[in-house]
Amino acid sequence: MKINGKPTRTIRIVPPSRNVEVIDQTLLPFRFALVELATMEDAARAILTMQVRGAPLIGATAAYGVALAMRADASDASLARAVAHLAKQRPTAVNLKWALDEMSRALAPVPPDKRADAAYARAGEICEEDVETCRRIGEHGLELIRAIAAKKKPGERVNILTHCNAGWLACVDWGTATSPIYQAHDAGIHVHVWVDETRPRNQGAFLTAFELGAHGVPHTIIADNAGGHYMQRGQVDIVIVGTDRVSANGDVANKIGTYLKALAAFDTGVPFYVALPFSTIDWTLNDGRNIPIEERSSSEVLRIQGQTADGTVVDAAIAAPGSPAANPAFDVTPARLVTGLITERGICAASRAGLRSLYPEQAA
Amino acid sequence: MKINGKPTRTIRIVPPSRNVEVIDQTLLPFRFALVELATMEDAARAILTMQVRGAPLIGATAAYGVALAMRADASDASLARAVAHLAKQRPTAVNLKWALDEMSRALAPVPPDKRADAAYARAGEICEEDVETCRRIGEHGLELIRAIAAKKKPGERVNILTHCNAGWLACVDWGTATSPIYQAHDAGIHVHVWVDETRPRNQGAFLTAFELGAHGVPHTIIADNAGGHYMQRGQVDIVIVGTDRVSANGDVANKIGTYLKALAAFDTGVPFYVALPFSTIDWTLNDGRNIPIEERSSSEVLRIQGQTADGTVVDAAIAAPGSPAANPAFDVTPARLVTGLITERGICAASRAGLRSLYPEQAA
Repeated sequence: MKINGKPTRTIRIVPPSRNVEVIDQTLLPFRFALVELATMEDAARAILTMQVRGAPLIGATAAYGVALAMRADASDASLARAVAHLAKQRPTAVNLKWALDEMSRALAPVPPDKRADAAYARAGEICEEDVETCRRIGEHGLELIRAIAAKKKPGERVNILTHCNAGWLACVDWGTATSPIYQAHDAGIHVHVWVDETRPRNQGAFLTAFELGAHGVPHTIIADNAGGHYMQRGQVDIVIVGTDRVSANGDVANKIGTYLKALAAFDTGVPFYVALPFSTIDWTLNDGRNIPIEERSSSEVLRIQGQTADGTVVDAAIAAPGSPAANPAFDVTPARLVTGLITERGICAASRAGLRSLYPEQAA
Repeated sequence: MKINGKPTRTIRIVPPSRNVEVIDQTLLPFRFALVELATMEDAARAILTMQVRGAPLIGATAAYGVALAMRADASDASLARAVAHLAKQRPTAVNLKWALDEMSRALAPVPPDKRADAAYARAGEICEEDVETCRRIGEHGLELIRAIAAKKKPGERVNILTHCNAGWLACVDWGTATSPIYQAHDAGIHVHVWVDETRPRNQGAFLTAFELGAHGVPHTIIADNAGGHYMQRGQVDIVIVGTDRVSANGDVANKIGTYLKALAAFDTGVPFYVALPFSTIDWTLNDGRNIPIEERSSSEVLRIQGQTADGTVVDAAIAAPGSPAANPAFDVTPARLVTGLITERGICAASRAGLRSLYPEQAA
């Protein structure tokens, strides 16, 4: 999407060096800076330190990390070392493992003197496939927004609420939940986004607000507490969120707090949609009730990064000294609260039958 | 309640000066400091700058503000001036107006040479009445906690979730939502409190966590997003919150985000109670749907006060620069989601019939 009017992706190859350039997302939203990755170790570090984050972007960075390794040393040993090293940077990211498996499979049969080119080519394809998947999610979601817009009076905006960052910063371009929003905005539909702050890591206020603002999409940051109130007062037309994992029956694991928004949407009759690529569906999981929930550091609740008036970025305590905190990172929204799933193949009910209608090849 | 083992109230008279001592709540939780109010203007400033906050404490401070005015000048003109000046510091606080009306009524017939003593006496009574009201709320709420504790295995804790600060810091002592908690803790019941951070003003993480910690009540701060997840996983036994206004049918206006917790409690079968003094019931309001919701400054969402490692308290931006924010301060929880109301007279259903059973004198 655009930053200051310039089309930008989260990851690209810099000619002629063929180094990999990414946005240092740890500096967002207070500073926008690009960082060049010249070695496989650079790519690993970018993943570990969360300069790149979001499952698709982690996968893309790992794929290019293998290309950087092949450029330096295209031996079988180097390939194995690169895959092993990159894989351990974020052990729970499914896309990381998937992308590395892809790279191994593609490169193993290639003679070493052709591996660097082949690696760049396959990594490039992985990126393009992600862009295309996200674009299609947006195309399908756009129709939902278009239908809402058609019922509005002239000049009335379509109000969309989103939680966390399922945006292009987490992918290569478009994003998942944001893709319908960008496509509606680019199509001239008057959209406005309620951006949940998304405590404790503030991905909404930090990243979603940044990327919507940079592309020129009207939006308003709200405390996570506020969305239900706006739904009660008729000021939300549709909720669109991303997801980390969808079970085979349509239960949705996503950023902590998603469940509360789904409850409010259900209670007030606001449609609640989840945007996801195929790869997020876990066909082996019958339902979401027992998805293990990552417990993250309490310091994410007790402290925050912010920018003081002089531009300094500080780390500050924002709770009573000595009080402990708990920090579950995700929750599970039962399928019964989800109006529909928006995938690259279309929109379906959040149910076993719905998912199988779009992915018949997965029928047991 | 206790601070470092020492019984403390939010407001007291300092002998022999008869100045009024309050906790400077603007410094909490990072610093605990007392401030002495020597004049009516001091009391007004303490209310305006939110050194004192919470409806009952604002009322108590205003009452003593009148006493300070009477000590300096007990004329009719001085009384009228004090009441008018104090009233305008927080125009929406119902208790402020109520306490000043009380003081006017009590002092008008008293000859000026006896007015200072009468003012101190009536202000003292207002404080004692608040303590007694809160104590009784706690007594009734304690029975709910006791019943839950009776079903637990030995050593198992009773998990109570609360939102915002309906604690003793907002009152003179005990608090409303916290009163049952303190009484259960003091009675030796193993309680543990999930403290909602309560964005954007962090009254949970700043004030509720501070006062629970100071009294020694086990508690854990969580992001506002997390409560629903804990309810789904059976880790919340009861929710107890305060309220700013209850309509005659039992709808509950309270801090933004309360509605979301009530939805989650209803969805998961967790009892959801609201603790309130009689004065919070608005018998003139048929239902809560149209309660006007205060829109507060967007800077409360976009910026935060925190303490850096060297002890400095800083004000920092915590959102994408340039992004706007909206900040509704309250929401309305429909009575259908409320298990019961805990008042100083007992516990009743959140309904017209329930309220009238406790307050038959209000029957139309």
